[in-house]
Amino acid sequence: MAEDASEELLLAAAFVSDAQYNRNIPFKTSPEAVRLYYLYNHWIMRAATYFFIFLNLSLAVFEEPAVYPLPFLATSLVEVLCLLVFFGRLTHFAKITPRNVFWKDTKNICIVVAILLSLTDLAIYGALRIYNIKSIRWSRIARPIFLINFAESRQIRRAFRSIRNTLPEITYVFLLFMFSLLMFSLMALKLFGERNLQTAEGLPYFRNYLEIVFDLYVLVTTANSPDVMMPAFDFSSWYALFFIAFVIVNTYIFMSLFLAVVYNNYKKHLKNEIRKLAYMKHRKMIEAFNLLKEEEGAQPVVREARWKQLVKLVAPDISNSHRELLLRISDDEQKGFIDKKSFVQLADLLNIQVITLKIRSHPLGQWMPHVYKSAVSQFLRSMVRHRGFVWTYDAIILINAIFIALDEETPYISYAEWVFLALYIIEILLKVYTYEPRVFFGKNQFWNWFDTLIIFAALTATILNTTLRSTTKYNSQQILDIVFILRVLRLIRIVDSIQRFRVIMNTLINIVPTMLTFGGLTLVVYCIFAIIGMELFHGKIEFFPANSNAPYALECGNPALKDSLFARGKYCKNNFNNFASSFIVLMELTVVNQWHVFANGFANVTAQPAKLYFIAFHIVMVIIIVKEVLQDEQLLDNMESAEHNLEGEVGTKTQPRGLVFKIASKRYRTVDALLQRMFEAEIPPEDEGPSFEEILNLSPTAASPSHLTSERAV
Amino acid sequence: MAEDASEELLLAAAFVSDAQYNRNIPFKTSPEAVRLYYLYNHWIMRAATYFFIFLNLSLAVFEEPAVYPLPFLATSLVEVLCLLVFFGRLTHFAKITPRNVFWKDTKNICIVVAILLSLTDLAIYGALRIYNIKSIRWSRIARPIFLINFAESRQIRRAFRSIRNTLPEITYVFLLFMFSLLMFSLMALKLFGERNLQTAEGLPYFRNYLEIVFDLYVLVTTANSPDVMMPAFDFSSWYALFFIAFVIVNTYIFMSLFLAVVYNNYKKHLKNEIRKLAYMKHRKMIEAFNLLKEEEGAQPVVREARWKQLVKLVAPDISNSHRELLLRISDDEQKGFIDKKSFVQLADLLNIQVITLKIRSHPLGQWMPHVYKSAVSQFLRSMVRHRGFVWTYDAIILINAIFIALDEETPYISYAEWVFLALYIIEILLKVYTYEPRVFFGKNQFWNWFDTLIIFAALTATILNTTLRSTTKYNSQQILDIVFILRVLRLIRIVDSIQRFRVIMNTLINIVPTMLTFGGLTLVVYCIFAIIGMELFHGKIEFFPANSNAPYALECGNPALKDSLFARGKYCKNNFNNFASSFIVLMELTVVNQWHVFANGFANVTAQPAKLYFIAFHIVMVIIIVKEVLQDEQLLDNMESAEHNLEGEVGTKTQPRGLVFKIASKRYRTVDALLQRMFEAEIPPEDEGPSFEEILNLSPTAASPSHLTSERAV
Repeated sequence: MAEDASEELLLAAAFVSDAQYNRNIPFKTSPEAVRLYYLYNHWIMRAATYFFIFLNLSLAVFEEPAVYPLPFLATSLVEVLCLLVFFGRLTHFAKITPRNVFWKDTKNICIVVAILLSLTDLAIYGALRIYNIKSIRWSRIARPIFLINFAESRQIRRAFRSIRNTLPEITYVFLLFMFSLLMFSLMALKLFGERNLQTAEGLPYFRNYLEIVFDLYVLVTTANSPDVMMPAFDFSSWYALFFIAFVIVNTYIFMSLFLAVVYNNYKKHLKNEIRKLAYMKHRKMIEAFNLLKEEEGAQPVVREARWKQLVKLVAPDISNSHRELLLRISDDEQKGFIDKKSFVQLADLLNIQVITLKIRSHPLGQWMPHVYKSAVSQFLRSMVRHRGFVWTYDAIILINAIFIALDEETPYISYAEWVFLALYIIEILLKVYTYEPRVFFGKNQFWNWFDTLIIFAALTATILNTTLRSTTKYNSQQILDIVFILRVLRLIRIVDSIQRFRVIMNTLINIVPTMLTFGGLTLVVYCIFAIIGMELFHGKIEFFPANSNAPYALECGNPALKDSLFARGKYCKNNFNNFASSFIVLMELTVVNQWHVFANGFANVTAQPAKLYFIAFHIVMVIIIVKEVLQDEQLLDNMESAEHNLEGEVGTKTQPRGLVFKIASKRYRTVDALLQRMFEAEIPPEDEGPSFEEILNLSPTAASPSHLTSERAV
Repeated sequence: MAEDASEELLLAAAFVSDAQYNRNIPFKTSPEAVRLYYLYNHWIMRAATYFFIFLNLSLAVFEEPAVYPLPFLATSLVEVLCLLVFFGRLTHFAKITPRNVFWKDTKNICIVVAILLSLTDLAIYGALRIYNIKSIRWSRIARPIFLINFAESRQIRRAFRSIRNTLPEITYVFLLFMFSLLMFSLMALKLFGERNLQTAEGLPYFRNYLEIVFDLYVLVTTANSPDVMMPAFDFSSWYALFFIAFVIVNTYIFMSLFLAVVYNNYKKHLKNEIRKLAYMKHRKMIEAFNLLKEEEGAQPVVREARWKQLVKLVAPDISNSHRELLLRISDDEQKGFIDKKSFVQLADLLNIQVITLKIRSHPLGQWMPHVYKSAVSQFLRSMVRHRGFVWTYDAIILINAIFIALDEETPYISYAEWVFLALYIIEILLKVYTYEPRVFFGKNQFWNWFDTLIIFAALTATILNTTLRSTTKYNSQQILDIVFILRVLRLIRIVDSIQRFRVIMNTLINIVPTMLTFGGLTLVVYCIFAIIGMELFHGKIEFFPANSNAPYALECGNPALKDSLFARGKYCKNNFNNFASSFIVLMELTVVNQWHVFANGFANVTAQPAKLYFIAFHIVMVIIIVKEVLQDEQLLDNMESAEHNLEGEVGTKTQPRGLVFKIASKRYRTVDALLQRMFEAEIPPEDEGPSFEEILNLSPTAASPSHLTSERAV
């Protein structure tokens, strides 16, 4: 019976924990499965999975064409190890989840297929290599699949799904855009083709239809903006109207249209996804409640003791007083039990970061009370607490900035650096002396940590540099560079002294979650395009130092680039010769400017269709960036109202028993949690909501799930 | 008494009309004032005002430095005329509105000041001109004030106000951005300054702090993207990290932050503005109701006869049946009177475009019934109505496209053009024969109008061209160009045959209102910057044809441009030598690409601070474009729900007496009307709402006006 109760508790805790972190894994409820599920969700297991995913991705750095070459045997052994880990993780998952669910999930099938493909490719490549036949490691493109499809990467997967949902409508806009582009190109051919005009490089201007289409596509991205128009404009001012009309229609109007279509579609699907998540969370809390409920009068409730055991299991690292606070909120009439409605809120309550402010006395005050409480010490501490202290140090930082800007060579100035370093160290020591050290280095004291780390790093680097210089007479450029950067970074501190800037920094922190998703998406796209790019363009363009005598050094080692803008811009180091270079090129392509110079350059050294690679990359990045911008706003939109709600809900209940609490941030820790607030109002608290299966089949076209809930509520 | 009643009706109609078009002019209610107010709102008066505003703006084309020079006397006489018209319009307005309200309004004061300044400047300039002293026509910058401040330009004024509201927060983000830029520049100076690197043009690289700041600012706009990084990247691959970090922080993160801040602020103020508008509309309808109400039982109502008189006054050009429909919706139980709640909705009902589909018989059917109803004619008409007819013509258009793409010189192909023209004309004739001509050329038949106009224009131009060629042997290039463009435009028709594209075109039409506001804003900014630009840079850079022997022809006539990217890109025709050129340069600067080449070029021929002009323009355009994007979305957001509401409200009531009606578009004709839907739900229908003064003092910080309305409702 006790055994049974503890197993029920474990299962309920798993449900609550899933609700808290928005995990939606349909696990089996048998005791062994639940225990395996705990292991599956353990942070070490998840960290290890991520480690091997990134290890697998980073193999591209060491494989041919390598930044740091390693023998094929080494990289292939590591790859096999990674694949084994992935297989193990998947097997673990299979043991947790019912078999029919497991094989219905395309995620799992994707992973299995990717593992099999990678092994096959590795085997074929290895076998051919023994006979010295060169072949392509084509399965490397499949590696980002692991990043997308392991259950941990929910945000990235959702972003991909959302893009896939938008694709049909985007396609129609794109077709209309292509139609417009082809029309304008036709006009351009007729208007300028027979004028015998020349570009600034002396090439024929607008003579070939396909080239016109490409040039005008580049103009849509604005990358060749005035240049493409100048020959026609010089011929007659009226022709400027053609290009102005072109830019207005194809850049501004189509971009607006594209945004509008994506936005409408995005909203439609997002609503449905988030509604599903909100229902799932609700459902899980109800399941947990049903496992733990007892009868109190006619009402099913969870008793206080049970509830505390549950919270201890779900959040083992929160303090007793924090748990008491949560209890006080859930059982606000102190009846000794928690009803269904309050119980369901637990998942959200656990997501609120609460800092317990224990007013501790300073350790020095305990060790040497006489010294610490003497008049001098009192004065010192009141001085540090005074506003003037902050202002003084802001002034010092500004003076320091001026010194940094001045020339380094004057000996006085390089001595001054020591003075500044000393001043900063004194500041930190004084603050630690005045404030309680554990408070000063608290979890949320970002700027204190930042200050201390930067200054100690600067101190270490400066000492190292001086030692090197005095002992070996050799001035290490790398260390000097780092010292410079650290010195300048130190100046950032001044931002924190201005209230307004701190508010802006908070807005910035609100955007971070979407930016991380965006980073993940970008990484996936970069990996795929880098691997394809290396296969297509590897070794075609090479970089030679300025004083090289290599043939065609100025043409990046390739005579096909003679007189090209690529060679003239000295872009030779922008090539696909290894993974790192490819990433840098893709970064430059993301920035869009001059991408046509790259496209033309790489098309010159291979074939004209190579431009399609660059166009494809541009289209993919536009879609991703538009998505990111939209999600940002959506988030901000809901953030506002969500923060408002929470304040009303929790803010009033924070001082029940004289404990001093502070809500560290009214922000939600996860994007999911935040977005769900929108839809939670829709769910009647007493209602069980639709079943898991019903939830998964909700469609975006059913505008509201009222038909589901109202039937049940009645 | 009858006199009195008709005056009351006139006043009520003025209120309803103001509510319908969201005009918020506080006019006096005396009979003469109301009559003057009708005259003030007459479309001829408004069109005349706009005509003189644009005439005044376009004077810049004819004044020194002129595109088409006119004597100073002519332009100044026209300017005085314009100013007189503006003064007259303002006096008219002063007669309508109470004196204290008139002088409280900054709009009016702005106009008065602008008129006085313009006259003073004109007098001084004229006087100095007599003595041959050159001076600056500085008041020309004030001309866009008339575009912004005449009561007609509500949308533009709102956009400006909204930008002004956002400015404080934008300033803080900008300061933070500047701080980041200065920090990175300092780092760049320390990291690269002493490396003796050179740019691709052989100039010193990152040596001077101010130049670094400018270069990195340009990098934020991505305009010099790979170029600025290449020297450092060539020196060491690791330095790429500096530039990648820079772009991520200063372009992407700061842009996100900027969007987020503007978005939050925009929403806050928009809500308040629209709420004000919604209250105003409600209030005006209540005023009108109170003027016309009679007692029916205990309930105040407006009788049917009165209501019909009112609607005839407000919307004289709607058909009887349309009016009957409106009555049926307002008085749905056919009680012979309209209650307050239904009366208030009238403003919205009038804004719904309804097409009365009168099933008319074809005029030919009336004139020659035997011929028109003969078997051949029947067959012909059923053929035209058949889907195959559309498909056939789509095929013809495609074949035509191929012919256009082929070379023009072959005689067969130029004959083919005549065949295509004939085919298109036959198509139009057949359609007019089959469908009723008044239906075919109905107001909403955009594509029919488009087709017909394009084809007749093409026919005229082709005939003109052939006549010219055969009579004078001279092939007019202008006419040929126009023929080409018309031929290609004709191909656009194919878009209309594909359902999906039609849907996208509808989305596009939804965005048009914001795009027009954006156009107005841009026009104002362009005018101001063009006038300043001409004063600063006029004549510094000149364009010479390719075969010119002028000194420094390749350097745009200015030796300071030797070896500059400006001269090398052959940008000489991009100058501020007249109003039209200035507009084209500003257009190119809006597109952003290569703007730093312009900035450097114009700074070289004048002084380095000239770059500030270009930076200022860039910042202003970023703010405007961000605003436009946000408004677009906001609009789409509300559009969706608004369309939904309307459908429920009106869609069910359209078939009362067997009349066939069609709601032409569920779209709102004005942006205002659309946005107001959001807030109308807030206003209790039976409530009078706050007074005009209370409405105008609503502040954005009071989250909801419930304290106002609820007090009254109780």
